[in-house]
Amino acid sequence: MRGAVLYAPGDVRVEERQDPRIIEPTDAIIRLSATCVCGSDLWPYRGLEAVDGPSPIGHEYAGIVQEVGSQVTGIRPGQFVVGSFFASDNTCELCQAGYQTSCINKEPIGANGAQAESLRVPLADGTLVATPDLPSDDLVPSFLAASDVLGTGWFGAVAAEAGPHRTAAVVGDGAVGLLAVLAARQLGAERVIAMSRHEPRQRLAVEFGATDVVPERGDEGVARIKELTGGLGAHSVIEAVGTQESMLQAIRSTRPGGHVGYVGVAHGVELPGTELFYSHVHLHGGPAPVRRFLPELVDLIWNRQIDPGKVFDLTLPLEQAAEGYRAMDQRRAIKTLLRP
Amino acid sequence: MRGAVLYAPGDVRVEERQDPRIIEPTDAIIRLSATCVCGSDLWPYRGLEAVDGPSPIGHEYAGIVQEVGSQVTGIRPGQFVVGSFFASDNTCELCQAGYQTSCINKEPIGANGAQAESLRVPLADGTLVATPDLPSDDLVPSFLAASDVLGTGWFGAVAAEAGPHRTAAVVGDGAVGLLAVLAARQLGAERVIAMSRHEPRQRLAVEFGATDVVPERGDEGVARIKELTGGLGAHSVIEAVGTQESMLQAIRSTRPGGHVGYVGVAHGVELPGTELFYSHVHLHGGPAPVRRFLPELVDLIWNRQIDPGKVFDLTLPLEQAAEGYRAMDQRRAIKTLLRP
Repeated sequence: MRGAVLYAPGDVRVEERQDPRIIEPTDAIIRLSATCVCGSDLWPYRGLEAVDGPSPIGHEYAGIVQEVGSQVTGIRPGQFVVGSFFASDNTCELCQAGYQTSCINKEPIGANGAQAESLRVPLADGTLVATPDLPSDDLVPSFLAASDVLGTGWFGAVAAEAGPHRTAAVVGDGAVGLLAVLAARQLGAERVIAMSRHEPRQRLAVEFGATDVVPERGDEGVARIKELTGGLGAHSVIEAVGTQESMLQAIRSTRPGGHVGYVGVAHGVELPGTELFYSHVHLHGGPAPVRRFLPELVDLIWNRQIDPGKVFDLTLPLEQAAEGYRAMDQRRAIKTLLRP
Repeated sequence: MRGAVLYAPGDVRVEERQDPRIIEPTDAIIRLSATCVCGSDLWPYRGLEAVDGPSPIGHEYAGIVQEVGSQVTGIRPGQFVVGSFFASDNTCELCQAGYQTSCINKEPIGANGAQAESLRVPLADGTLVATPDLPSDDLVPSFLAASDVLGTGWFGAVAAEAGPHRTAAVVGDGAVGLLAVLAARQLGAERVIAMSRHEPRQRLAVEFGATDVVPERGDEGVARIKELTGGLGAHSVIEAVGTQESMLQAIRSTRPGGHVGYVGVAHGVELPGTELFYSHVHLHGGPAPVRRFLPELVDLIWNRQIDPGKVFDLTLPLEQAAEGYRAMDQRRAIKTLLRP
């Protein structure tokens, strides 16, 4: 089959890769309807994370089950399924507590390289969620988004305890940040402030339910959030970048007693203990346990109550994955969908 | 009146200080029944926090109201009262949300120096809680503990979401840590692990409800907590020290999805973002909003359901405050009560 391989920073190639096959009796093989490039793929692509030899890449997927292992009972060939970027058994104590990305048997999907025609998904019963029936083509991008960016933005909003009578703010206008806006609104936040200085992203944030847009960042951004919230800061702030600056911007934009939900993969972050202590904020985040939210998200998409697929503003054939990476790296695209 | 003054690291003197008087119409003057030395007083005493000239010291107090300002309506002379180490209006949006130590009108009690015969308490209506009647003498130490260490340990346990069917662990065996053990147990935690290597403190932890005692610290301590919790870590960990080591010990002792409640005043702490991200813990803490819990704590003490006054293992006349500091500094005493 054809699949993407990251050779070195800036060097992604689509080439022949071995067809995936059932290894464990709990595996499933999926023929991908769509896959995509993640903001987190840009870290190694930009050389900001080590690249370990040529390696398959990609961890977002939606498609049709081709084959299942002998112990798979909940999923069957022919079903359209979505799963998270970590396979999880969904039965261990941590999964049951809602932390499937910390499952004691977790396996990273990225190691199998989801930017490809087919994918082996371990722990299929625990990992995959099927749609009620085969979806129409126009819904596929939204189901694909559920695999990571929607689920991650959703977890950020849940971790930030966005909800009725509360003001939420979102730091970061990538796909995750924009979908955190959607999530905060869906969770009932009265006011959702998107922090973005890029006009097309501001527009999408408003489509997703942002009530205010703040283009300032850093100290000025914090000052604007305070101005908009009676001097106190937002109740709920979602951090969707992962840098020192964005974490501090998120913490400082939150009122005492408020909640920061951080889902940007941390790079070079060192949180100053004294400032954190006196900030009185709640801090929660990490790799989003997307699986926790998938049943609900699949339902919302199936019933066309949300349209997270709008974050894909560039669609390319899988063969042009390299251009998909370049467009995101240069911020010409928010997120690239790849059609195998 | 007589009162303690910190002149320089290691140099506390009891001397004549001006009698406090009503300055604002919302003030009250309290004649102190008891006051005490706090673990946080040791930071400047040890020269680890700047000492700004000779300054009155102390922020824990319980006693009888002598006089109130013209606008005070909820408190009257003759009542026995307890208050927190921050005065708060208890009416602003942050107080109403339960964060009285971030009250928009907050004033630190320490500036007025509570290690003295009398004390001016600002915002008396918001700050002070009266007992149903004058308490008997043996209850005074417990009410004094409610002023800070009990309320702080309690907040740590609440922030760590200690409760039924959960295992709580406490890092730190000072008065706050020991009272966090008591709080976790009162909040219904099934199992409470005290981390302490000092025999008298271990004993008191068990009296307060600890089910297990772990003398190891650092990586070994973390390994012991994991052993005791099926390899996962505790659900709720209370950090009651404030150093880099103790914060990391607390975070690493917590299972993914679990809660760290940190109440040790942070000194030199820098939290590694990547580790925090993948830990999946909830982090909450800061200066304890003791006022939130005071009505409940006063009730529990009045009805003799808890006996937090046991943390005072040294009682001295106020005149011997210097010896009280020395005993705590040298860990000869857990906590020193001073009788004016």
